[in-house]
Amino acid sequence: MSIADAVSELKLIFQERLSTAPSVLEQHGKDWTWNAGRNPDAVVFPHSTDEVVRIVKICAKHQTPIIPFGAGTSVEGHFAAVQGGITLDMQQMNEVLAVNAEDLDAKVQAGVTREQLNRHLRHSGLFFPIDPGADACLGGMTATRASGTNAVRYGTMRESVLALTVVLADGRVIQTARRARKSSSGYDLTRLFVGSEGTLGVITEVTVRLFGIPEAVTSAVCSFPDMKRAVDTVIETIQSGVPIARIEMLDEVLMEAVNHYSKLDYNVAPTLLLEFHGTKSSADEQARSVEAIAREHGCVDFRWSADENERAKMWQARRDVPWASLALRPGSKMLATDVCVPISRLADCIVETKADLAESKILATLVGHVGDGNFHLGLMIDPDSKEEVAHAEAFSERLVHRALAMDGTCTGEHGIGLGKMRFMIPEHGEAVEVMRMIKSALDPQNLMNPGKMLPARAEL
Amino acid sequence: MSIADAVSELKLIFQERLSTAPSVLEQHGKDWTWNAGRNPDAVVFPHSTDEVVRIVKICAKHQTPIIPFGAGTSVEGHFAAVQGGITLDMQQMNEVLAVNAEDLDAKVQAGVTREQLNRHLRHSGLFFPIDPGADACLGGMTATRASGTNAVRYGTMRESVLALTVVLADGRVIQTARRARKSSSGYDLTRLFVGSEGTLGVITEVTVRLFGIPEAVTSAVCSFPDMKRAVDTVIETIQSGVPIARIEMLDEVLMEAVNHYSKLDYNVAPTLLLEFHGTKSSADEQARSVEAIAREHGCVDFRWSADENERAKMWQARRDVPWASLALRPGSKMLATDVCVPISRLADCIVETKADLAESKILATLVGHVGDGNFHLGLMIDPDSKEEVAHAEAFSERLVHRALAMDGTCTGEHGIGLGKMRFMIPEHGEAVEVMRMIKSALDPQNLMNPGKMLPARAEL
Repeated sequence: MSIADAVSELKLIFQERLSTAPSVLEQHGKDWTWNAGRNPDAVVFPHSTDEVVRIVKICAKHQTPIIPFGAGTSVEGHFAAVQGGITLDMQQMNEVLAVNAEDLDAKVQAGVTREQLNRHLRHSGLFFPIDPGADACLGGMTATRASGTNAVRYGTMRESVLALTVVLADGRVIQTARRARKSSSGYDLTRLFVGSEGTLGVITEVTVRLFGIPEAVTSAVCSFPDMKRAVDTVIETIQSGVPIARIEMLDEVLMEAVNHYSKLDYNVAPTLLLEFHGTKSSADEQARSVEAIAREHGCVDFRWSADENERAKMWQARRDVPWASLALRPGSKMLATDVCVPISRLADCIVETKADLAESKILATLVGHVGDGNFHLGLMIDPDSKEEVAHAEAFSERLVHRALAMDGTCTGEHGIGLGKMRFMIPEHGEAVEVMRMIKSALDPQNLMNPGKMLPARAEL
Repeated sequence: MSIADAVSELKLIFQERLSTAPSVLEQHGKDWTWNAGRNPDAVVFPHSTDEVVRIVKICAKHQTPIIPFGAGTSVEGHFAAVQGGITLDMQQMNEVLAVNAEDLDAKVQAGVTREQLNRHLRHSGLFFPIDPGADACLGGMTATRASGTNAVRYGTMRESVLALTVVLADGRVIQTARRARKSSSGYDLTRLFVGSEGTLGVITEVTVRLFGIPEAVTSAVCSFPDMKRAVDTVIETIQSGVPIARIEMLDEVLMEAVNHYSKLDYNVAPTLLLEFHGTKSSADEQARSVEAIAREHGCVDFRWSADENERAKMWQARRDVPWASLALRPGSKMLATDVCVPISRLADCIVETKADLAESKILATLVGHVGDGNFHLGLMIDPDSKEEVAHAEAFSERLVHRALAMDGTCTGEHGIGLGKMRFMIPEHGEAVEVMRMIKSALDPQNLMNPGKMLPARAEL
């Protein structure tokens, strides 16, 4: 085994599209969070599935790890080259291959970002709704089973991906499915690769569902005297069956941060950001239903924003949450974590977590895609302080075990990467062994993003 | 290996809950379609996951095939014991284990049927929407990735299953997921088992999503001078984003059959059965939109049926389609087949198929869950006539290849079983080998419903 041999062989083929420049390696070895990084030995920029096949075959021959890299926006150390190897930067595979407007789907190369796809669609009356915040690429969003603010209405990548082109560990290429909306033909390989975090193969093309741009969009902001009332509003909204498009909750710490960072003047209190899609009359009907529920639960104010500019400002503020949070403590790094619980347990989980935060004296912001029972915490820590890191890790551990005890999951949408590997067995138990069996079957040399997601078997 | 030894050992444990009576074996070896059957060596009726574990371990020890059996309503020879073995009849595992009304989910044993679950839910304001026609059990519906009339609005079993309890081939038990609505934690084992047709393990418990019973339901029937106009109405309805709950198409042959069998007086012409769910105002708004689309496409009549009795009669007629079809030719057996294509190709696919039917002089009825691009054909044949069987098989082959050429799938919801194994390689190509790798990894002795879904590797 020699990674150096693989690098030399690839250099001959890819020339200036293979880089070993320290700045390039560094940029591909470390995400923006507190997670430890490690540089790959080289970064290569393929343009096609065929080129990925060549790379994978050369790496397989030299037993060299292969780490797929999208827009670099994942947050659990997914792309750190923990065993060295070659990073495949997919960003130059950025062609929209087909838009089938009649079928409401599109096929793109893995490096196309969600904003790029939506720009491409701008005259079609269609859009791709999944919005994890960052301008992630569709290959990476698929690999991490991304979701985000619109998931409560439009689903996650699990529901949105119709088919994938995947290069397997031995260089074979498969199509996981065809474009039919449903099928009972064979194992669901599409869903197997959605969320596989690069550990089973390299996703090179993605076919996704699109949706018609709603005729009308209505937004609202409402704040509450406490968190529980906000969460109860969410629970009742979901249970009432209102097809709400977004229902985001920000805690009071975050509202202050957002006001400051994005120059806004929202109430500094637990707040819901709401969006309704439909015909004019159905969007209004939905909004009125939720307003009634919010008022019943004692919301302090309920501000409408049918105006597109105001709406854009509000969602931009939502997107700026990570930076607004970090600005609360200049120089800090973020431990960004998320959990997801059945919605009936959401209030309990959040209230207990806020109490834990208060007791632990950790500076953190809370934001949730609460319609799915999913919420995020950003802990602002000094990564050089062992004490702070240990303190934050202990908190994070308590958070996950709290969610698991409520029949929840250790991550709603961030994925496992390095950061959450230690929770795989607490969450899945024996099923982790089934995952390992699948991993071994498809990647017997353990070259596809090794050292991620699946914890090593315990020593005897 | 000795199946007889497994039967003896199981008999000692299960006593009268293990049967080798010829009538019982026969009932479990053959479905109601034209597919060839084969009796198992014994049928055992477990009551719990633990009992399934005991059965699977004994079968594994004696290298005896294990065939899970639900309500026996599958149509592709899924449960024929082609290599002999033990059939696990799951129908006595029929307990509703939990209804979490606040979370809109329920956990049931695999043998609970969909109608049983809905009866159980009748005072909760919730329902389980997936309706494949027959009163199938949830284990079987999961294993075949069932869908049916409501899928266009509520999704298929792929979207509805939140978690499964599965007994693996070596007797280990796994939970595939927790109850959180979404998760990015690990491989999607839930979706791997949904549609696995008993070939990877025995599903013993199923957690499914529920929905609030809509405040208002409106139905309509409309008929068209020809098939193309009906299909174009469907395509435009889907593209317009109307969240229609059901949109079923029946051809003129079937309308005549249904009128006769169910004593109705519908127009004998291509017909759409429509249903709209929502608040009173949104259901009416949806219905008016679709009426406008249908009239633009020249529908002959558009009959509303807000009345619950009339609606029930209409959907009962829809459910009686198989029997109404068979009554067209007493003594015949049905070759029941389905395909699914991208909706933009639906009109082409149906028009070409109808022309093929006319030319082939085959008596057949056509009904479709057309909102998904999915349609069914029931060919009434004399199973003892080799000529008719060959003729029907050739037609069926042309149908599948027509669908595949349109980027469709060989089955939208029936599954592969025995009947469609020969289409796996034409549809999936190299991906079939990945499915085989997964099958070998999870079931190295090939005891879980062997001889189904995955065609044997070609001889060299």
